Amino acid sequence: MSERVEPTAHATAAPAGAFGARILDLAERLAKHSEMAGGLTCTYLSPAHRVVAMELQDLMQAAGLDTGIDVVGNVTGRYGSVNPGAKTLIVGSHYDTVVNAGRYDGRLGILTALVVAEHLQRAGQPLPFHLDIIAFAEEEGVRFGASYIGSSAVAGRFDQAMLQRRDANGVSLADALLAVGRKPEDIAALARRPQELLGYLEVHIEQGPVLLNSNRPAGIVTAIAGGSRHQVIVEGRAGHAGTVPMARRRDAAAAAAEMVLAVERRCSAKQGLVGTVGKLTVPNGAINVIPARCELTLDIRASEEIVHEAAERDIIAEIARIAARRGVMADVVELSRTPAVSFSSRLQALMAQALTRADVEPLHLASGAGHDAVMFSGLTEIGMLFVRCGNGGISHDPRESVTADDADVGARVLLDIILSLA
Amino acid sequence: MSERVEPTAHATAAPAGAFGARILDLAERLAKHSEMAGGLTCTYLSPAHRVVAMELQDLMQAAGLDTGIDVVGNVTGRYGSVNPGAKTLIVGSHYDTVVNAGRYDGRLGILTALVVAEHLQRAGQPLPFHLDIIAFAEEEGVRFGASYIGSSAVAGRFDQAMLQRRDANGVSLADALLAVGRKPEDIAALARRPQELLGYLEVHIEQGPVLLNSNRPAGIVTAIAGGSRHQVIVEGRAGHAGTVPMARRRDAAAAAAEMVLAVERRCSAKQGLVGTVGKLTVPNGAINVIPARCELTLDIRASEEIVHEAAERDIIAEIARIAARRGVMADVVELSRTPAVSFSSRLQALMAQALTRADVEPLHLASGAGHDAVMFSGLTEIGMLFVRCGNGGISHDPRESVTADDADVGARVLLDIILSLA
Repeated sequence: MSERVEPTAHATAAPAGAFGARILDLAERLAKHSEMAGGLTCTYLSPAHRVVAMELQDLMQAAGLDTGIDVVGNVTGRYGSVNPGAKTLIVGSHYDTVVNAGRYDGRLGILTALVVAEHLQRAGQPLPFHLDIIAFAEEEGVRFGASYIGSSAVAGRFDQAMLQRRDANGVSLADALLAVGRKPEDIAALARRPQELLGYLEVHIEQGPVLLNSNRPAGIVTAIAGGSRHQVIVEGRAGHAGTVPMARRRDAAAAAAEMVLAVERRCSAKQGLVGTVGKLTVPNGAINVIPARCELTLDIRASEEIVHEAAERDIIAEIARIAARRGVMADVVELSRTPAVSFSSRLQALMAQALTRADVEPLHLASGAGHDAVMFSGLTEIGMLFVRCGNGGISHDPRESVTADDADVGARVLLDIILSLA
Repeated sequence: MSERVEPTAHATAAPAGAFGARILDLAERLAKHSEMAGGLTCTYLSPAHRVVAMELQDLMQAAGLDTGIDVVGNVTGRYGSVNPGAKTLIVGSHYDTVVNAGRYDGRLGILTALVVAEHLQRAGQPLPFHLDIIAFAEEEGVRFGASYIGSSAVAGRFDQAMLQRRDANGVSLADALLAVGRKPEDIAALARRPQELLGYLEVHIEQGPVLLNSNRPAGIVTAIAGGSRHQVIVEGRAGHAGTVPMARRRDAAAAAAEMVLAVERRCSAKQGLVGTVGKLTVPNGAINVIPARCELTLDIRASEEIVHEAAERDIIAEIARIAARRGVMADVVELSRTPAVSFSSRLQALMAQALTRADVEPLHLASGAGHDAVMFSGLTEIGMLFVRCGNGGISHDPRESVTADDADVGARVLLDIILSLA
């Protein structure tokens, strides 16, 4: 997929370096608003979160955009078309964060779109479509255990049942909205109609090491992995650590250990497949008691559904075999399931051309993580550009990093794609 | 070790069945005093524990013994010798319990000694030594995380530093004693002098399945396993469960899983060796985050020190190899170390004869668990008899069980040994 395209000079192309430093400066500025001392936490509708929304609106306003903060807290800024009846290209990402987060996850995409809009405004570049920058209020799912609150509303996929979800303090999403003067019944009106949309683009930090290891500042996302999550409860038999011979044990932790390694082994056997045991615990374990119970979770993902399903089936069968061989019980309960999402081939091709013009050999990669773009799948054409993640690809961590040069490439490529669509 | 001995009729031998039912009745009576509803918990110096002490003293008094409750709460009952200057044979075990315990662990040994003393009293059997039944107040180590408070005091091995240990409510052992009117400075005077002791015997439920599987009501303990306990902390690298390829992970839980299986494999390779990972946890684990840290504990025991040490060395080396191969850190910290204890060959031989006279083929087995007898090792000759544990050998659990027939054999064998020593 690395077709050769001759570099062409767009009238309004920006000089290299103009965008990157500003994006990093703005990310640092937004990161000052946090719920925690000494680190960045900005969860949905917290005071820090509301300050960030206002600051984003100010930035969009200063860029000459037509701005607003909608009922769920999304900050929108429109660079309007010369033709009022034109379709709309949305460029979005989210501004909420996980606990003790990095400063680029989500925000990089918003700020990249912002600096591109600033540039278009400065250049007085007319567009044949409306360009809507949307800073989604919620994607991470931290506060209510529900992801995509912002983008699902805009995509017309908001699940009304989410309004009854409660945070750790027992506050429902409905009450949290009412407390900041917003009416839950207005959410439905946020839904964009497919026929009004030209497409959806998102720039996001990779959150992994693929671009880093292949020495690319940015790359084209082909798909978002589908996956499933399960809870596994292993029940064996307690016993005195000193008195029960090894051969007579039904050790729940030893069985669980074998399951952890089975997940690792099966998922290492195939490219594009990952499997994780993120929670593992012997409840009320004591140093001198053979574990009667061990609890673990499975998170299995692949960019191709067929690969995910085969791995899931094999792993669940292997868990049952391990349990049977060891004389323990293993109860596997599915917690959630997400289908894989593919990105538009046309937008991928445009990105490849834009990357080539930016002297970056196009690299295609799948995303293991979900993104706001998922919500627009099936509604309009979607495209996604990943920007290289430093520090080994670490994510959801204060050490998450992006260089100004890489952020600059991301913005130039986004600008190029927008101009190509024009 | 199964020498053939002709059954001989001791003058005061009891008819089969006389002891068992009473032992079980008394165990049930004592189990009514508990700190929890619906189960048995009787930890050191709790109200339930103090009631049990008084009830034991009443039982000993009714058996015609010379009784007392000492400063640490041990209940003593002396069946005095005709010769005031004679040595003393101690028969002891403990009356405290673990949380949600069975009713026989510790108490079986006290009640077995009690019914034997009742029998001697009824028969008017003179003894050339004092027979001291001691119900030790504390062996399990639940309240203060310190075991053997009762027996260490009598053995003159009480560690004064223990007085500063605090329970979960922050109460020190010293204050707990003062609160019930006992003076910690009186503990030292409890120490028995070796030259005054004839020996120490203990009857205890096996807490494992060896006698059950070999179809014996009772068996001879050869040694108490020595062992060591370690804490292992594995530190890897966090990462997004969807975005970090399997080959690039430093998953602390997967490394820990391999360590758990290494412990199991190494300890299964040798008879008399056991290894347990009783605690295993990913602190703050999240379903979609690659574990950065995993904590586990090791408990390795063997009846022979050389076997324990070789296993411990191999396991620690294997943990280091696993960590190095996976690029994670593993920190192994020793928490405690207990040398193996051997029982007197002479007392083992007497027990073998007594078992044979009771029509039980003598079986020798090691104890994986520690017992009060450990405190008397090196001080006097020690001997220990295990009584079969039902329900698969389950221990530290309400399902712990002993049959009246087996308890009866234990008491008859104890009586026989005492008479043999006379």
